[in-house]
Amino acid sequence: MEIWTEPQMEAIHKMLNPRSIAIVGATPRLQYGGRFLAAALKAQDRVRVYPVNPNYDEIQGVKSYPSVADLPEGPDLVGIVVPYHQVLEILKACHAKGAGSAIVISAGFAERGVPARRDLQTQLGAFARDTGLRLSGPNCLGLANVKDDIWATSSSRGAKGVTGPVGLVCQSGATAFGPFLARAADAGVGFSYIISTGNEADLDCSDFARYLLDDAATRVIAGFVEGFKDASKFLEVAKLAAERGKPLVMIKIGRSEAGARAARSHTAALTGADKLYDAVFAQYGVIRVQDYDELLEVSQLLAHTPKPEHPGVAVVSHSGGVSSLTADMCGLAGLDLPPLSDHARDGIDGILKGFGWAANPADVTGFANSASFPSIMEYLLDEPQVGTLVIASAGADTQAEQVISLRQRTHKGIAFLWTGSRSETAGLAKLKLANIPVFYTPDTLARGLRRRLDYHAWRDRRLSDGFAEAPALSAEQHRAIGRLRTAARTTLSESESKQLIAAWGIPVTREVLASSAEAAVEAAERLGYPVALKVDSPDIPHKTE
Amino acid sequence: MEIWTEPQMEAIHKMLNPRSIAIVGATPRLQYGGRFLAAALKAQDRVRVYPVNPNYDEIQGVKSYPSVADLPEGPDLVGIVVPYHQVLEILKACHAKGAGSAIVISAGFAERGVPARRDLQTQLGAFARDTGLRLSGPNCLGLANVKDDIWATSSSRGAKGVTGPVGLVCQSGATAFGPFLARAADAGVGFSYIISTGNEADLDCSDFARYLLDDAATRVIAGFVEGFKDASKFLEVAKLAAERGKPLVMIKIGRSEAGARAARSHTAALTGADKLYDAVFAQYGVIRVQDYDELLEVSQLLAHTPKPEHPGVAVVSHSGGVSSLTADMCGLAGLDLPPLSDHARDGIDGILKGFGWAANPADVTGFANSASFPSIMEYLLDEPQVGTLVIASAGADTQAEQVISLRQRTHKGIAFLWTGSRSETAGLAKLKLANIPVFYTPDTLARGLRRRLDYHAWRDRRLSDGFAEAPALSAEQHRAIGRLRTAARTTLSESESKQLIAAWGIPVTREVLASSAEAAVEAAERLGYPVALKVDSPDIPHKTE
Repeated sequence: MEIWTEPQMEAIHKMLNPRSIAIVGATPRLQYGGRFLAAALKAQDRVRVYPVNPNYDEIQGVKSYPSVADLPEGPDLVGIVVPYHQVLEILKACHAKGAGSAIVISAGFAERGVPARRDLQTQLGAFARDTGLRLSGPNCLGLANVKDDIWATSSSRGAKGVTGPVGLVCQSGATAFGPFLARAADAGVGFSYIISTGNEADLDCSDFARYLLDDAATRVIAGFVEGFKDASKFLEVAKLAAERGKPLVMIKIGRSEAGARAARSHTAALTGADKLYDAVFAQYGVIRVQDYDELLEVSQLLAHTPKPEHPGVAVVSHSGGVSSLTADMCGLAGLDLPPLSDHARDGIDGILKGFGWAANPADVTGFANSASFPSIMEYLLDEPQVGTLVIASAGADTQAEQVISLRQRTHKGIAFLWTGSRSETAGLAKLKLANIPVFYTPDTLARGLRRRLDYHAWRDRRLSDGFAEAPALSAEQHRAIGRLRTAARTTLSESESKQLIAAWGIPVTREVLASSAEAAVEAAERLGYPVALKVDSPDIPHKTE
Repeated sequence: MEIWTEPQMEAIHKMLNPRSIAIVGATPRLQYGGRFLAAALKAQDRVRVYPVNPNYDEIQGVKSYPSVADLPEGPDLVGIVVPYHQVLEILKACHAKGAGSAIVISAGFAERGVPARRDLQTQLGAFARDTGLRLSGPNCLGLANVKDDIWATSSSRGAKGVTGPVGLVCQSGATAFGPFLARAADAGVGFSYIISTGNEADLDCSDFARYLLDDAATRVIAGFVEGFKDASKFLEVAKLAAERGKPLVMIKIGRSEAGARAARSHTAALTGADKLYDAVFAQYGVIRVQDYDELLEVSQLLAHTPKPEHPGVAVVSHSGGVSSLTADMCGLAGLDLPPLSDHARDGIDGILKGFGWAANPADVTGFANSASFPSIMEYLLDEPQVGTLVIASAGADTQAEQVISLRQRTHKGIAFLWTGSRSETAGLAKLKLANIPVFYTPDTLARGLRRRLDYHAWRDRRLSDGFAEAPALSAEQHRAIGRLRTAARTTLSESESKQLIAAWGIPVTREVLASSAEAAVEAAERLGYPVALKVDSPDIPHKTE
């Protein structure tokens, strides 16, 4: 079975690279609809932009259309910012007009936790799949094609970012255009696309990740996921990503029950069993991280360093304390800092003339800010067991230029541990601009290097061995899954869960479903005491205890 | 036995609060001696500053003296920046002149790893203790009395910092005046003192920490330690700190062999068995952290929040994704996010009017930037099980002012998770200035809150139960320790180690020390084959394998 179709990928392509954008619910004031219009208008010289609002002839200086039907063309992308109950009608009008794709900003669907709204969301998804008018959302903040500077978002946080090879897919819009965008700008990490998917009535993060796999501008796919609607689809993405050597770096909510509960409220996402995700991610080479800064730093490292030829790491610093702490954290992360050869030690000693320490880690004192620093770095980088050089310092422009120049001359990995102020403009700014991967504390550096090593080691194994295939399902297992699939729900009641488990041959307690007090008594007598009485409902999970 | 004497504490007091500073080896150029002079001269209006250098009549606009003997007074503090072989002579001259204390910036002692330099360092320490001219260093960068803006340091990183209640003791000078100072300025974390101790020939970090325990301006003691010269002294500090409720927050190198090896090169420090430190720190309530940003954030949290009355944490954010991730990390850290009472839920629902989610964590959408936000925060803070409120947002000045105002009205803890750019001036700058503890990622926030809870819970137990006393040593154990102490070394040979272990009744393999091939053969025949032959030398540790 083909998971993704050509028309679906074409719809995503139009959504991410629109030549025309309509905004239904555009307003002069900079609320959601007004902000979407304002963001789109920044690309006015390259993209045709159509506000749709019957109350205005002109909005933000642009002609406004009373309805979708009145538009001069079927736009590549329609941003929908209207009350929840009008969304389906608008989608129908967009389809009739021949629109290519839609972003539903409107909230008020499954995240409200009531059946009617959940049903409405299901209808949006079905409509999108049936008609081919594929959509992102509802309850999202839109997206940005950063590389071409086209912003289709209601974010209040501005429409400006650094261009680069990281493609970001994020279920939470306020996180995509909040911490991710802000910290990426801080860190100089560049995006190809920023995509928020919200409740995922139709297209989900796996669909967008699948698109990014084919996108030449994206070298690393970064994701923030509360829960997967369809985990098998994600695994297919992970397999393809491994083949192509595009790392997947992810935050997956659900480390704890508190987070899982919050995610259910937020985008109605089911986080699933966390240990299972850990195991599956490990098997499929997905790099799981804990926070947005880490996601960006690790993505930047993977995007801008080659595969390490050797696992060894060399560390050089102007400070003995920094080099000790860096070595300590590298050791804690299981990284190898190979001792220096006589050649390297004598060479560096010849430069240091008794100051500092010619070793790995090297403490080269003020020589880290001298004309001799390139020679020191070269001695370390030329060591046969060293695959990656870490400069742990906070020098000025000259030091940064020396590091950037060295990176151009080597096929080994270079990373920087910046120990100065994060707001430094000298040195640090140059490093960022040159896309030297920068970390700010020894332990995030060490964990980042560890993840890079593990990823490439995993991929080497994967390319030589292939994935372990899951055993085929038995007829009984197929039937059990089929029965539950027809229920079209994402939570199972206790008795349904037990039927499923039993199909895999796992013993379960005997039980009878009783719908009245009398039936319960009768069942208890049939089973034999002692018995336990429990509520059985898909709406009340986690009540087994 | 009294560990600390009155004269010792007086010497430290003079060193940290000098009314007169001489710099031996001051120069016009801004190398080590020149920088020390320049830093001291910033306090010229409050402190008498005397450069000492026979080659100049005047340095940096101040009269220079040919020798210590020529100074008009015995200064409270002498900064010594001369070649290593001149240091002892200068110290003698300082003592003759009646100086109060000394900082030895000069390097070239035990860190060089050769016996003659180690001996020279031992002589410095002995001289200091014998004469009472106590000293910090050698191989340090000096110190700063930040609260009174007196800087006695050769650091090249400037002499400017924020004043506050964190006292920093750091064996590495370049770390104290590098990442610690820079990141504290970034984060708005204020210091009372910054003290670098270097090789610790005389005064060590425990001595300075002991002083800070009595210092009213210091509420939290932060430390960066490669190795303790005398662990029992540190434990005494930890005991006193617990009694007084001044938390000790520390980075201790030695998490891995790579770090331990680096520390030995750097300040000739013995890092010791890491698991042992973990156990002892846990027993004595010392908060162990991994990096400088974490050290500063946790110190700031402890300094600026009261003891939590309840362990429960409430989280409120403008973003569902941020609130999910924050809750997830809090859960992972074992923190409790109690569900809201009906009162709070209904109250917040009444404000949100169907948007967002009135729960814990609360996703209050745009209401986080509205006049209603104080009411929302108050509902959460008034929950009986909530001891700490976390605001996870990135609002402008108004939001910051609302949070600051709330903090003034409550006796519960307030912490901020800033999700915007770290270089934001609106909002964030106000929070820092008001000393609201700010974290920048959900997992550092969660770990910080966890450490605060653990610290206060530990201290409550400690105050009610006291410390468990170690069992007294047996006569044989005393003898075993005594024999090794006379060797005056810090590493033991294999046979010495085994003697020590055997004194505690732990079985060891039989062995004979042989000094020739013939003796070895004879010993092997006596012991019975099979046997293993090994080198036995205190200079070759880690060769047992």
